[in-house]
Amino acid sequence: MNTSAKSPAPSHLAYVPFVSVENMMKLVHRIGIEEMLRDLTDWIEEDFRKWPQFDKTPRVASHSGVGVIELMPTSDGEMYGFKYVNGHPKNTSEGLQTVTAFGLLAEVSTGYPVLLSEMTVLTALRTAATSAMVARHLAPGRARTMAMIGNGAQSEFQAMAMRAVCGIDRLRLFDKDSRATEKLMRNLAGQGFHLTACAAPEEAIEGAEIITTCTADKQYATILTDNMVGAGVHINAIGGDCPGKTELHKDILTRSDVFVEYPPQTRIEGEIQQMPEDFPVTEIWEVITGARPGRTDERQITLFDGVGFAIEDFSALRYVRAKVEERGLCDRLDMIADPDDPRDLFGMLQRARP
Amino acid sequence: MNTSAKSPAPSHLAYVPFVSVENMMKLVHRIGIEEMLRDLTDWIEEDFRKWPQFDKTPRVASHSGVGVIELMPTSDGEMYGFKYVNGHPKNTSEGLQTVTAFGLLAEVSTGYPVLLSEMTVLTALRTAATSAMVARHLAPGRARTMAMIGNGAQSEFQAMAMRAVCGIDRLRLFDKDSRATEKLMRNLAGQGFHLTACAAPEEAIEGAEIITTCTADKQYATILTDNMVGAGVHINAIGGDCPGKTELHKDILTRSDVFVEYPPQTRIEGEIQQMPEDFPVTEIWEVITGARPGRTDERQITLFDGVGFAIEDFSALRYVRAKVEERGLCDRLDMIADPDDPRDLFGMLQRARP
Repeated sequence: MNTSAKSPAPSHLAYVPFVSVENMMKLVHRIGIEEMLRDLTDWIEEDFRKWPQFDKTPRVASHSGVGVIELMPTSDGEMYGFKYVNGHPKNTSEGLQTVTAFGLLAEVSTGYPVLLSEMTVLTALRTAATSAMVARHLAPGRARTMAMIGNGAQSEFQAMAMRAVCGIDRLRLFDKDSRATEKLMRNLAGQGFHLTACAAPEEAIEGAEIITTCTADKQYATILTDNMVGAGVHINAIGGDCPGKTELHKDILTRSDVFVEYPPQTRIEGEIQQMPEDFPVTEIWEVITGARPGRTDERQITLFDGVGFAIEDFSALRYVRAKVEERGLCDRLDMIADPDDPRDLFGMLQRARP
Repeated sequence: MNTSAKSPAPSHLAYVPFVSVENMMKLVHRIGIEEMLRDLTDWIEEDFRKWPQFDKTPRVASHSGVGVIELMPTSDGEMYGFKYVNGHPKNTSEGLQTVTAFGLLAEVSTGYPVLLSEMTVLTALRTAATSAMVARHLAPGRARTMAMIGNGAQSEFQAMAMRAVCGIDRLRLFDKDSRATEKLMRNLAGQGFHLTACAAPEEAIEGAEIITTCTADKQYATILTDNMVGAGVHINAIGGDCPGKTELHKDILTRSDVFVEYPPQTRIEGEIQQMPEDFPVTEIWEVITGARPGRTDERQITLFDGVGFAIEDFSALRYVRAKVEERGLCDRLDMIADPDDPRDLFGMLQRARP
């Protein structure tokens, strides 16, 4: 900072607390990943209970031939948050992340940002926490085994959250690329999971009460077909999350009770993009508040058509803000101009002349 | 950065170049403010010439009782950009900026951010450059005098751009708060302008070929009434820029030829929100390319109903990116997680364990 008399250091209002990737990883380790996933599940659920008071909009997507860049804003009237996130399935083959993200919180009353944060790691955590929150309400109570189809960047987070929140400790793994499965088994070795690598999706789902599909190809795929899915399971379908990208055969959808985050977005992006506009769904917030039933029957197939919604990021950013400040895990960015006289932006610029 | 073997420093892909307020002000002074305003006018005009190839959408606004927070995305197919900007007129009375902003550029091909920048100062510059770009095409050729109604944070930038691009060197100033006018006169003293403080808008517009209205109240105001505006002037109306906020009596609109940036946005936010949906307007990019006429007659009143559009921010960010890199005026932010194996986000997190 230039601290000469002509260019005084900005006031505290000029600084935006920033959580780097390094600090986010430190935060995860200081809290503990399972504890943090449980916390996030609770913070997201708390915001879902307040669903009607949020300003909601389908995310604003900019599609190209190779991927999508999205902005996901929301507000509860006191705080405003948004996430920038991309989705580029072909990135992996170039050594890049399929998904990178960052996000921001601001005060509605002033419009001033109060937190900028990396969200690549945080999105992985909140996505897993959201799946666990939904499974807590919909999965069969006795569930201990999950089939994990797609063993990419999101898979270990799903496993950790499902254990922390729902008690899942047996994983049956399948990925069309066996190196992904090997990576998952390496990462979760010695952490108390019972891990089984499977040669086909059919094998992976044997005996599983929860089936998680999390694959990344941008195409209409059929990871699960109807004859594979038995009665009583909970399907956590989170890989089909943009137009033209689905994972399930539509016959599964007609046999299941389908639960979603925000229908106007899910009808565009989720598995139900395959179905008519009036295909019946239940909004998960209504199950959480008790306004609508969740699982009512042991033989029922419940299906969470998860695409990720802005409120989940909002909850996660609020949580991170509360936790990093007390631990000193943020830097301060000189991102907001803050002249002494707010009408005198030009004067501030002139006084900064070298 | 932790550079231990267990937590290797992130690769260059993990870092996002960041332009702080301090570095933005340094950039302005190294280039020179009038030179930079001329450059921005040219860069914005270059992008307006390519208008049809941009992905365009009205900005995504979150309104509250006291202000608005907006996201303004666009893309030309190669680069993606967006700006976060708030508008809180009451902020000034609390010692805060009415408008603060930051923005980001990313590569469409990967979704990876390549620049994060302060945009409070940059928005002031690009708004002035846009007004000057439009005035260059529409104002009477002999113009030397501008009435500047509203002498707040944007006013000096407007004056500098109109001189740099259009040759305006006489300013007639009015603000309902005379301290704002005094501030403007202090800031522009000794810089070669002929400055006249006026006691009323009627006095300010006497002899002016360009009338700029730039006031910030969030209300339907009538800064100019019909009988005040004589033949042949160019009106640069930039203060009316959100629903419920206008500056001109609608009779002026019917007497003028109205030029806008992006009609779907301006019909919601601009002066023409007072007019029927089919009120005729000309898109300024069509004047720039020669597809539609601009000023055709000496007695014609031309009116730029400027609200600010995402492409202007995109051009400004591209310009800043080109200029800061060669001058070393950016920091590097650890904002993007970049594991060695892109599918192994969890492994990266584990290896960062202290």
